[in-house]
Amino acid sequence: MHVLRCPRCGIELDLLAKQHTCPRCGEPLLLKAELRVPEGGGLESLVPDGLKLVTLGEGRTPTVELGNYLFKLEFLNPTGSFKDRGASLSISRALKLGFRMVIEDSSGNAGISTAAYSARAGLKARVYVPKDAPQGKLRLIRAFGAEVVTSETRDEAHKRAVSDTSGFYVGHVVDPFFIEGIKDISLELYSVRRDLEVVVVPVASGTLFLGLLKGFEELRELGLIDEVPTLIPVEACGYSKLRGYLRSVYLECAESDKSLLADALRLTIVPRLRQIVEGALRAKAPYVAVVGDRAIGEALKELYSLGLPVEPSSAATYAAAKYVAKDLSTRVVVPLTGSGLKYVPVPSEPLDRYLFGAQ
Amino acid sequence: MHVLRCPRCGIELDLLAKQHTCPRCGEPLLLKAELRVPEGGGLESLVPDGLKLVTLGEGRTPTVELGNYLFKLEFLNPTGSFKDRGASLSISRALKLGFRMVIEDSSGNAGISTAAYSARAGLKARVYVPKDAPQGKLRLIRAFGAEVVTSETRDEAHKRAVSDTSGFYVGHVVDPFFIEGIKDISLELYSVRRDLEVVVVPVASGTLFLGLLKGFEELRELGLIDEVPTLIPVEACGYSKLRGYLRSVYLECAESDKSLLADALRLTIVPRLRQIVEGALRAKAPYVAVVGDRAIGEALKELYSLGLPVEPSSAATYAAAKYVAKDLSTRVVVPLTGSGLKYVPVPSEPLDRYLFGAQ
Repeated sequence: MHVLRCPRCGIELDLLAKQHTCPRCGEPLLLKAELRVPEGGGLESLVPDGLKLVTLGEGRTPTVELGNYLFKLEFLNPTGSFKDRGASLSISRALKLGFRMVIEDSSGNAGISTAAYSARAGLKARVYVPKDAPQGKLRLIRAFGAEVVTSETRDEAHKRAVSDTSGFYVGHVVDPFFIEGIKDISLELYSVRRDLEVVVVPVASGTLFLGLLKGFEELRELGLIDEVPTLIPVEACGYSKLRGYLRSVYLECAESDKSLLADALRLTIVPRLRQIVEGALRAKAPYVAVVGDRAIGEALKELYSLGLPVEPSSAATYAAAKYVAKDLSTRVVVPLTGSGLKYVPVPSEPLDRYLFGAQ
Repeated sequence: MHVLRCPRCGIELDLLAKQHTCPRCGEPLLLKAELRVPEGGGLESLVPDGLKLVTLGEGRTPTVELGNYLFKLEFLNPTGSFKDRGASLSISRALKLGFRMVIEDSSGNAGISTAAYSARAGLKARVYVPKDAPQGKLRLIRAFGAEVVTSETRDEAHKRAVSDTSGFYVGHVVDPFFIEGIKDISLELYSVRRDLEVVVVPVASGTLFLGLLKGFEELRELGLIDEVPTLIPVEACGYSKLRGYLRSVYLECAESDKSLLADALRLTIVPRLRQIVEGALRAKAPYVAVVGDRAIGEALKELYSLGLPVEPSSAATYAAAKYVAKDLSTRVVVPLTGSGLKYVPVPSEPLDRYLFGAQ
């Protein structure tokens, strides 16, 4: 049996309550299930009771080992980002609850996922985006038949989406089902290797961080691992939410810099900030890596030279991984979250400068 | 033990001979292995003896069942097309043979795969392309560090690549290792379902068709299936090579039409044409479906409304599948070969007309 549970005050709600946040203390909820290792030993995430899964074949992404790095190719999900895993469950829930229209806010990838899974489920979708979101991503959202509404900033897009009452808000920044979809990444990593020590994790709204942590903590609760790996958060220069809470390591990031390349990491309104901070302490994060465009651009170039076509925001994670591998003398798991196929086809600065040099 | 074998005159060569074609009769070669079902029952393709696999995590793509269709999501390979499976083996061979540079000709996707796997292997790559190849695809080839050389037409690009002696020609249109990589799709389909009856297969140079056929024929040889499924070739309007050999079914394709949308299907110089024709007869193809832009555009729109972000050339396959499902009253396997993430971000006609309507 799954229930919705408040990780702050412990209150439990029916799984199919419509809330994202705790009616008592306002904290964003999480799902809680009775855990068990399935007979036969195969470990697969449980679809919450009574939910018919809306699926496009997400998950079971490849891992590629290169030197000190174990890359998890999350950009090979159906619409090109790890967000598909979350959208699959969020949209399944919206459908189950009987809604005909969903609302999301996004810098791009989550909007694409929401649009695709809504199309698959026969739901209408409206996505609020910042005006400087990559135009290619907006074309993809529209290609799936969703409506795009433009706002001044990423934060403004979030505020407008939350107050739009014409459909069910499936905002990934707060929807507990979204995180439940993400946590499968931990189970898949566990199925590949049992000796994971350090994972670097890009943090915008924290769904990947909290999903990975939830998965590893459940694996520990099941007695399958002794310790949760160290999870090290990665943020974009100029958009750090964690620097007041954790020691910051700056990689090519001066005080006044603001990343242009890491467009997926520019959210600053983060409903789950408390959970991320507490989670980072539980996961023994020694610091947060805050990465600037020069480090991102160089890491991006390097990833393409390894044959891995990711988006710039994912290169921030690799830039941090290179620092961590050296600093802690350890192997590092690197989730590569978003596809470069959405980006590189469209000429853009400063991307082209890093990828193609002076052309 | 693997060898190279001529499917026309039967001559056998050492696996690591440098030829693509038969020294006696000129026919493009194929690989031949002693087949066996591995102990434990898991069925996985054998890496040819002595080859160290250059991999980016290709293969094991998802299947999605929707009504009469079983979609195989080949666009979720690492660089967004099924060509990655072939390039993995072709580049592994070039590396094993000691070359430092490879040459390819391509309308886009195979060039992207060659560029990525060459980058991964530390080889230089030069790709000959037609001047009207999608610019977004050319940017991706360059992003992996490969050189792009532009020709007037797709056929001209092929001729120039073949005569370039500055590196090892890994042209997918003729390289036998390429097809060996593709054939795994059959094994994966078999692992999902045992009752496959009809598969629609887009044909340009025929690597997908011949790879699938080789896989199914080997499964039959191993006694795992009784019959090879019916394979129905799909071509683009104005670029049919099979119409003299098979009955043609035209879908929105008049005599003088030439497809603009199906840019991946415009090759007309096809070294393996004899093998495709003979294979189509062995696979009991009742006809070839020749698909025009109107049918492609409408099928593309429909695929996006199902949440499947493919490229236009893949929509040609779905258009054919819809005809076949009705005509033969059967379920149809539909390989979706290439990603729309490379396309849709870039504004283009006539794509936009079909995808977005009059905007």
